Amino acid sequence: MEFRIEKDTMGKVQVPAHVYWGAQTQRSIENFKIAQDINKMPREIVRAFAYLKKAAALTNFDAGVLPKEKCDLIGQVCDEILDGKLDDQFPLVVWQTGSGTQSNMNVNEVVAYRGHVIQGGELADEKKFLHPNDDVNKSQSSNDTFPTAMHIAAYKILIEVTIPGIEKLRNTLHAKAVEFKNVVKIGRTHFMDATPLTLGQEFSGYVSQLDHGLRAIKNTLAHLSELALGGTAVGTGINTPPNYSENVAKHIAALTGLPFVTAENKFEALAAHDAIVEAHGALKTVAASLMKIGNDIRMLSSGPRAGIGEIFIPDNEPGSSIMPGKVNPTQCEAMTMVAAQVMGNDVAINFGGAMGHFELNVFKPVMIYNFLHSARLIGDVCVSFNDKCAEGIRPIEENITKHVNNSLMLVTALNTKIGYYKAAEIAQTAHRDGSTLKETAIRLGYLTAEEFDQWVIPGDMVGEINV
Amino acid sequence: MEFRIEKDTMGKVQVPAHVYWGAQTQRSIENFKIAQDINKMPREIVRAFAYLKKAAALTNFDAGVLPKEKCDLIGQVCDEILDGKLDDQFPLVVWQTGSGTQSNMNVNEVVAYRGHVIQGGELADEKKFLHPNDDVNKSQSSNDTFPTAMHIAAYKILIEVTIPGIEKLRNTLHAKAVEFKNVVKIGRTHFMDATPLTLGQEFSGYVSQLDHGLRAIKNTLAHLSELALGGTAVGTGINTPPNYSENVAKHIAALTGLPFVTAENKFEALAAHDAIVEAHGALKTVAASLMKIGNDIRMLSSGPRAGIGEIFIPDNEPGSSIMPGKVNPTQCEAMTMVAAQVMGNDVAINFGGAMGHFELNVFKPVMIYNFLHSARLIGDVCVSFNDKCAEGIRPIEENITKHVNNSLMLVTALNTKIGYYKAAEIAQTAHRDGSTLKETAIRLGYLTAEEFDQWVIPGDMVGEINV
Amino acid sequence: MEFRIEKDTMGKVQVPAHVYWGAQTQRSIENFKIAQDINKMPREIVRAFAYLKKAAALTNFDAGVLPKEKCDLIGQVCDEILDGKLDDQFPLVVWQTGSGTQSNMNVNEVVAYRGHVIQGGELADEKKFLHPNDDVNKSQSSNDTFPTAMHIAAYKILIEVTIPGIEKLRNTLHAKAVEFKNVVKIGRTHFMDATPLTLGQEFSGYVSQLDHGLRAIKNTLAHLSELALGGTAVGTGINTPPNYSENVAKHIAALTGLPFVTAENKFEALAAHDAIVEAHGALKTVAASLMKIGNDIRMLSSGPRAGIGEIFIPDNEPGSSIMPGKVNPTQCEAMTMVAAQVMGNDVAINFGGAMGHFELNVFKPVMIYNFLHSARLIGDVCVSFNDKCAEGIRPIEENITKHVNNSLMLVTALNTKIGYYKAAEIAQTAHRDGSTLKETAIRLGYLTAEEFDQWVIPGDMVGEINV
Amino acid sequence: MEFRIEKDTMGKVQVPAHVYWGAQTQRSIENFKIAQDINKMPREIVRAFAYLKKAAALTNFDAGVLPKEKCDLIGQVCDEILDGKLDDQFPLVVWQTGSGTQSNMNVNEVVAYRGHVIQGGELADEKKFLHPNDDVNKSQSSNDTFPTAMHIAAYKILIEVTIPGIEKLRNTLHAKAVEFKNVVKIGRTHFMDATPLTLGQEFSGYVSQLDHGLRAIKNTLAHLSELALGGTAVGTGINTPPNYSENVAKHIAALTGLPFVTAENKFEALAAHDAIVEAHGALKTVAASLMKIGNDIRMLSSGPRAGIGEIFIPDNEPGSSIMPGKVNPTQCEAMTMVAAQVMGNDVAINFGGAMGHFELNVFKPVMIYNFLHSARLIGDVCVSFNDKCAEGIRPIEENITKHVNNSLMLVTALNTKIGYYKAAEIAQTAHRDGSTLKETAIRLGYLTAEEFDQWVIPGDMVGEINV
Repeated sequence: MEFRIEKDTMGKVQVPAHVYWGAQTQRSIENFKIAQDINKMPREIVRAFAYLKKAAALTNFDAGVLPKEKCDLIGQVCDEILDGKLDDQFPLVVWQTGSGTQSNMNVNEVVAYRGHVIQGGELADEKKFLHPNDDVNKSQSSNDTFPTAMHIAAYKILIEVTIPGIEKLRNTLHAKAVEFKNVVKIGRTHFMDATPLTLGQEFSGYVSQLDHGLRAIKNTLAHLSELALGGTAVGTGINTPPNYSENVAKHIAALTGLPFVTAENKFEALAAHDAIVEAHGALKTVAASLMKIGNDIRMLSSGPRAGIGEIFIPDNEPGSSIMPGKVNPTQCEAMTMVAAQVMGNDVAINFGGAMGHFELNVFKPVMIYNFLHSARLIGDVCVSFNDKCAEGIRPIEENITKHVNNSLMLVTALNTKIGYYKAAEIAQTAHRDGSTLKETAIRLGYLTAEEFDQWVIPGDMVGEINV
Repeated sequence: MEFRIEKDTMGKVQVPAHVYWGAQTQRSIENFKIAQDINKMPREIVRAFAYLKKAAALTNFDAGVLPKEKCDLIGQVCDEILDGKLDDQFPLVVWQTGSGTQSNMNVNEVVAYRGHVIQGGELADEKKFLHPNDDVNKSQSSNDTFPTAMHIAAYKILIEVTIPGIEKLRNTLHAKAVEFKNVVKIGRTHFMDATPLTLGQEFSGYVSQLDHGLRAIKNTLAHLSELALGGTAVGTGINTPPNYSENVAKHIAALTGLPFVTAENKFEALAAHDAIVEAHGALKTVAASLMKIGNDIRMLSSGPRAGIGEIFIPDNEPGSSIMPGKVNPTQCEAMTMVAAQVMGNDVAINFGGAMGHFELNVFKPVMIYNFLHSARLIGDVCVSFNDKCAEGIRPIEENITKHVNNSLMLVTALNTKIGYYKAAEIAQTAHRDGSTLKETAIRLGYLTAEEFDQWVIPGDMVGEINV
Repeated sequence: MEFRIEKDTMGKVQVPAHVYWGAQTQRSIENFKIAQDINKMPREIVRAFAYLKKAAALTNFDAGVLPKEKCDLIGQVCDEILDGKLDDQFPLVVWQTGSGTQSNMNVNEVVAYRGHVIQGGELADEKKFLHPNDDVNKSQSSNDTFPTAMHIAAYKILIEVTIPGIEKLRNTLHAKAVEFKNVVKIGRTHFMDATPLTLGQEFSGYVSQLDHGLRAIKNTLAHLSELALGGTAVGTGINTPPNYSENVAKHIAALTGLPFVTAENKFEALAAHDAIVEAHGALKTVAASLMKIGNDIRMLSSGPRAGIGEIFIPDNEPGSSIMPGKVNPTQCEAMTMVAAQVMGNDVAINFGGAMGHFELNVFKPVMIYNFLHSARLIGDVCVSFNDKCAEGIRPIEENITKHVNNSLMLVTALNTKIGYYKAAEIAQTAHRDGSTLKETAIRLGYLTAEEFDQWVIPGDMVGEINV
Repeated sequence: MEFRIEKDTMGKVQVPAHVYWGAQTQRSIENFKIAQDINKMPREIVRAFAYLKKAAALTNFDAGVLPKEKCDLIGQVCDEILDGKLDDQFPLVVWQTGSGTQSNMNVNEVVAYRGHVIQGGELADEKKFLHPNDDVNKSQSSNDTFPTAMHIAAYKILIEVTIPGIEKLRNTLHAKAVEFKNVVKIGRTHFMDATPLTLGQEFSGYVSQLDHGLRAIKNTLAHLSELALGGTAVGTGINTPPNYSENVAKHIAALTGLPFVTAENKFEALAAHDAIVEAHGALKTVAASLMKIGNDIRMLSSGPRAGIGEIFIPDNEPGSSIMPGKVNPTQCEAMTMVAAQVMGNDVAINFGGAMGHFELNVFKPVMIYNFLHSARLIGDVCVSFNDKCAEGIRPIEENITKHVNNSLMLVTALNTKIGYYKAAEIAQTAHRDGSTLKETAIRLGYLTAEEFDQWVIPGDMVGEINV
């Protein structure tokens, strides 16, 4: 491989001749050989940096501390990053400096050196038109840029991937709830037969879970909308021009189309990432919902002949490499595995979030890595589950009818007629004898056949159907 | 011990002669010998049940399905429970039926039998004036009462213990932030010397963390305000009179003075406890904040001679059984231990919350046990930390001044004057030689003594002080 | 209340007149008003302290640094503690100094002052025969006594409660596995019908889980057997007589009958509690096993008419306050709730275990509190589940036979006869048509009725039965 | 793109013309669009499959159920996979069927079709020489192959990456402990000044943590060495030749050079993955150790002028994009971030491990994904921390000496001379007055200057130095 020489404040470094990164990126590659093939800094962070570097350049230009030509050049490279044209220029991993300094420098170097080339220079030039620190990083620190990138990336992925994914699944489940609103079926509590409800009512519970989950996520957006930028090194805003914080937040809001504001307290914004901890708390709540829904669908569709068997789900692939003809609830499995992952990610985030010291939390990369992972997984799996499973769900009426009609818990309708104790006696006797409720009720002399038929009607036991 | 005989639908049970509980409570004592000495069902749940049993009686009376005398009697016993007069009548543990059925029946039995005694009967009477199921539990199921009790207990403890505790600490830290707003000190990032800020600014970050934490908790109250009551067995509301759900929620709101409403979807309210998962997500966020604050205070007060030593904290007790005269940051230790506990409780809640099946989540007791534990611990520890530590914090000016003046990171002020690279050279040289920044800067010829004195002023590097 | 005056190095303190504790215990009560009603320092720790204080006195006497009379007196009070006679003398909570200093001092004070009374003195005497620090705590520090008490308590509870509880359940499940070894039933993978196995084979899997879990626990005992005592303040053993560490460990081993040894490295033993983290890692493994077993039993017993219904479990109590005659898998619910709690406790322990600094981990109380909680819960719940559920399990042959005979997955037996693809076609066709495998196989012309009967025999598909 | 047609039991599928995979792999790509760019099934699993497919072919050949030519061909492709020549043929993600069926089929297809090509056929041939199910998957099921691959991959990575990484760091720290064994320094407990120890003793604690951690990992290898292969669909071993389980385990042991054996209970081996839960319990224990070590090193090296400053660590890169000359403990940060990640991964594994149902756990991919992630991260970060940080640590004698000599806790040496209370008075007085212990001791009249000099010698307070 060919190399060129770049240098930073610690001296010279050999860098591959044709990459846009410089000395500090190269040092990081060599210093952090940790899972380099699988744990690259997430692309969402790189792109969030592009927004903020452009916004910082614009703000610096507005403040008169950066010439227009440099500002334009920085913006042009940032646009290239946002267009995905420079994806291979960001080789660093999550497991680096805990402030993300090296990823900030990676962006600074790529913007500076790519800008230099756009402007007509060559990578091998010792002096370049744009300086990574003095120009691209002007009025910034890793300590305020990285958390700003965290919030931009987190907010964007929630809005663009997570929430739409959940909404898509929510809407399908709602349509199913409406479609199935009159399908009377047995209820199950403690995994045991209980009083009836409709399949639509059952599905409406899932819809309600996701509705509440969406609200939970949205409740956390306000904190995520606060940007650290302008706090620079320790939160005091050293080396920034006047009103920089507010102005740069406005530029970021304009560039992203999202309602970002400057953080009300920069010390909090650098030293703690409670916004990430809090927002992921909402994601883990959704994960709990998805685990419930995935389990229910898997169990309701179980069988085909020795299970619950009350719904069909689409069979998308052969289910077994050894058992011919087997179909499995594979989308449920992907979804519940995602839920397990999100629960784990939550703890990694909690650990990171709890361990800031003084003016800086240095678990930034691990926190945002896990956050983006969860947000992405939830969004993707909701779409996959929706498209490949939820949309194809339909009731298996035969089994549903058989189950509800056999149920001993229909006896509950008699509580208000003959009291809980006599009703219990009927159910227990029928269970012991393998007989029906009606036979037993009559035999015990607690009511007539006519009364039974009038009082024990599954469809009358489901209340107001309001899905 | 003397016994009397009580019975339920499964037959007769020997019960201690003088307790108010009955057959089902006694069965539970015998069936669940699991940590009976340490894991009683939390008192907050028992009291929440008292509110809801009284509210249910009132609603049943309003609906014409319960006579006034029974309604009054139920209310009277509930008031005794709320006054703490019957605390020893609730012997059951957390580790019982996952729906909390037995704790519901414990309350039903105690209310019925104590009511019978108030009304003039004797515990030994075979037939009692009030029936645990047909009267006290009328229009209810364990499946909707227990989650209702969960939300009442959770909401109340947040309002009465957790939030006031956090606010108390928040207010003291805010007062300290104001008091210390002009105490210029060294900043620390990566645990290393950084640019200066004021001690008040540092404390303002803690205040901001708690302010955001309080908002996070409050954001979750809406979901917690939804009550399951009226869903009865599976969410359909079987065996309830018309408009029962709305009416009973109003009675509970009136009795508690808290804005409870009926849950918008009863199937969700029985089968999932995402509200608890979500609200505890806010509590774990606060735990992360408390871990940060506790660690910082412990480290800032470290020494007295070989540590950071920038603040005094009160010495409340001898610190060591072997090292005479030792003082330790014990309140920080209690607070960070609480934070660790809350992080663990969060995972227990996540497990429970994820594992509902069909129409019922049967991890109710473990979920609310952990929730109440966390809510109580956070509230209590904030008050303890406040009273015994935070209020007594004061700066150790001598160390603060020495640290800030020696700092090499004051060089950052020169970035905008001589550029990042030359500034770095000054800092590195001074570090290597053990010399001061000023000496080095002059020796390297990058600026004059006058320029240094004019440009490098710690107090000018802390930005706008706006605590 | 009457008071007397006690003092410590910080001055005088009012103490209730008739308690055996002194100034430092009283300070702790007043300084740590955190969940005082529910989170007392576990009794197991107090008793572990009794062993070690007695052992230390004996070792000090052997070394000639403590007179015989004092040694005997200390031992006598320790025996009273072990007999449970002084349980109400230990009022402190978990949420105190992170080294457990105050609980160490609580023991020191109670031993000293109770000893003084035994020896004929009065609590009001200003000078007492035994001094809490100079006599009872001689050659010790909180920093080595508390971790020693942690290991004694943890080891003992594993041996006395956890392991016997698991073994009891394991043995019952093994007996069931043998009893059910020839009950051929349908297998289920992905919750879907699969090839057959016997009920005994299914149960043998649970036995194997618990066998491995027991081994996992036992693998961690070696680390737990290492005692910190002798390290004193920071691990160097300052203020101990020669060979103290080894000798005191021998005394503790003799007193407890357990194979304790002195820790190979005292710095590790004070500054880290990896032994607790590791051993609880085994407990959480068992919790995962119990969750699986509890879920399986709950699901296998589901019904009675609309579930899986392949096993009976005992009905110990009425299952529902509204649905008469309902029976629920309540022991499964208690067991799976315990599993959820242990998973949470694991994270609390991980947090505490990760956060030692320099020469001391100050999350000792929260770590041992969670450890003892888990160890107790697992032991107790295994016994409860065993006695009230596992012992009463029996197969429901009718359902088992119906399920296995209807199964489409019996087709797997044909793979080696006609190939996977044709077998799949048979199963898929039968599934679509609602017909039997045999009819379909013949109709498709892939085999004769005789061949089918010869090749497809559920009892031949279960392999060697070796439970 | 060009396509060819492949088919499976569900019908025809368009597959890219030149890939070796077939219909089922292609279906999975289309059915599981979940984080496809970042969560590929780990390479370690693909390679573990290569071992087991080759071993299965050999065993089948030995048993006379697979011709030699097919056996050889399968082995040849497996060798290509192990050589990394087919890495791009495994496009599937973690978030698929929970049994990993599709990754098993991916391997089956690639082996079959690549084998067909090696043998002279073309990918477009409708009939191929090797059949994915009937040949490559012969005597196997996804249900026993995937867990076998899990154990092979887990065992190998522990042996090849994790353990050597930890050992490398352990050995360096041990060398440092020996090197620093006589460097007397102040101890710190509760982050406060305590009695002295040597820097070597402090480091010996880290060594002891890692030694115990290595033992903890090794204790879990026995369970990991058990292979599920031979259990096929549900654990009964349907469709396997006699003695298949034992023989295939021997082949795998021979091929890998690792002591694999057949699982003692196949039902456990399919339905539970407690071995993974248990082994990761050891990894999280090591993570706790690494968090402690990383924190200590970061704090000991803090400064350079306002911190603890007792050790130098190498400066590998510029530390700040805004603060010139700043050096940060970046390897500590990477290591502690890894520790946080492992703690999170542990919970994901616990969730997955707890949720098997009946004959199969369907959280296999998420469990092994997290396990391999942790094992890799720990191994890599130990090497990185070792090479870039630990090896370069050296004491800063000046600060160490100053700290120890100023310490008030040297007074502890006087306990045995003048008693704890008088010693405390000396320390408290010196602290209040800012004077030295010696001055104060003399002034209070408790001892002479000569006595002080004779009794209070830091180097005499560190006990036996036995690192």
